[in-house]
Amino acid sequence: MNFGRHISGQFNVELESIRTHVLAMGGLVEQQISFAMQALHKGDIELAKKVVKDDHKVNSMEVSIDEACTRIIAKRQPTAKDLRLIIAIIKTITDLERIGDVATKIAYVAIESESSAERQFHVSLEPLCRQAIGMLHQVLDAFARMDVAAAAEVYKLDDKIDIEYEAVIRQLMTYMMEDPKNIPNILQVMWSARAIERVGDRCQNICEYIIYFVKGKDVRHLGNQSIDDALR
Amino acid sequence: MNFGRHISGQFNVELESIRTHVLAMGGLVEQQISFAMQALHKGDIELAKKVVKDDHKVNSMEVSIDEACTRIIAKRQPTAKDLRLIIAIIKTITDLERIGDVATKIAYVAIESESSAERQFHVSLEPLCRQAIGMLHQVLDAFARMDVAAAAEVYKLDDKIDIEYEAVIRQLMTYMMEDPKNIPNILQVMWSARAIERVGDRCQNICEYIIYFVKGKDVRHLGNQSIDDALR
Repeated sequence: MNFGRHISGQFNVELESIRTHVLAMGGLVEQQISFAMQALHKGDIELAKKVVKDDHKVNSMEVSIDEACTRIIAKRQPTAKDLRLIIAIIKTITDLERIGDVATKIAYVAIESESSAERQFHVSLEPLCRQAIGMLHQVLDAFARMDVAAAAEVYKLDDKIDIEYEAVIRQLMTYMMEDPKNIPNILQVMWSARAIERVGDRCQNICEYIIYFVKGKDVRHLGNQSIDDALR
Repeated sequence: MNFGRHISGQFNVELESIRTHVLAMGGLVEQQISFAMQALHKGDIELAKKVVKDDHKVNSMEVSIDEACTRIIAKRQPTAKDLRLIIAIIKTITDLERIGDVATKIAYVAIESESSAERQFHVSLEPLCRQAIGMLHQVLDAFARMDVAAAAEVYKLDDKIDIEYEAVIRQLMTYMMEDPKNIPNILQVMWSARAIERVGDRCQNICEYIIYFVKGKDVRHLGNQSIDDALR
């Protein structure tokens, strides 16, 4: 992105700095969620504890980026596209922080699942996890380049995540009915599945903010078709 | 709230207008969630359909308030407390919109629960619903008066919601184990319980924005104790 149009070179530096921080936050959240899922699959308690321990880093990045955004609005009084960038960033980091919370939740499930009997159900989550991490990676990539076409493509990936999620829930429900004594353990896995499915929704939100920044159009609550229309 | 300190009378009018819209949105969301829960308890499909139909009103209020906030930043270049008010509103309406989504989710559960066999489990949700609606009502009241002390009190109510939620889940889990053929129905009720429990978390977020506006302190991610400290 080229912010070179500003008369104030310092303003450019500030905008670029905020953008770099958002990308760093995105990278950390992606790492957190990858580590949490790895910890869950391998039963790696140490890794899960690291995820829980590092959650505060995500939180403090959210707070400091929010502060930087408020400061830049007060000091630089941005309008038009610059203002949209700041608003898009304020909203994006909220979703990133919540994805960070999902990582922590999954890490806790990993920590609490001591027996291998519990861990056998975690296998069901693997394809869903892979898809969610892939979507997050792609949306961060689209954000880095502020690429609306890429954002619109990433947006559609959520349908696949929803289908996979439904399949996981059906499978876990069958396990529950086959052996009711496993219900408490399987419920934990279901909560995790639900949290991972929500990562897809949050990635969709970020796609909407990218489109808002670049096109100046608020495409929330409109669905796939209207997003395609907005880009035409 | 008195915005009378502005030289521009028009700016006061604009800020007051945005605030009124947020309160109207809050009122609508409170109504949506009350109707959804009523529909669930009484098996009132018509009321549930009304909730689903009215969700777009919540969404379009979010979009139009967001637009008004961006416009006021660009035009009035607010700083300090005025800017904090705008930022607090931008964040508050995101949470309100998500509470609106919870109402829609619950309404769908009501629509899909045709048999009275399914509805018998909904009774378990009543105390949780009452608490969540109460918390939402109180946080909107604190927002209307921008009352930090009230916000700090409301914040603590979430602990009670969490305890009630755990009790509901334990009870529903017992029903599942007693009669595994009910598992799919009970799972629907569990998802609703989870969604209602999240209403409490979103109300807590709004409490944090009220404190941010009034005190200029970002108390997110700090917990009960630090909120009390911030108010001292």
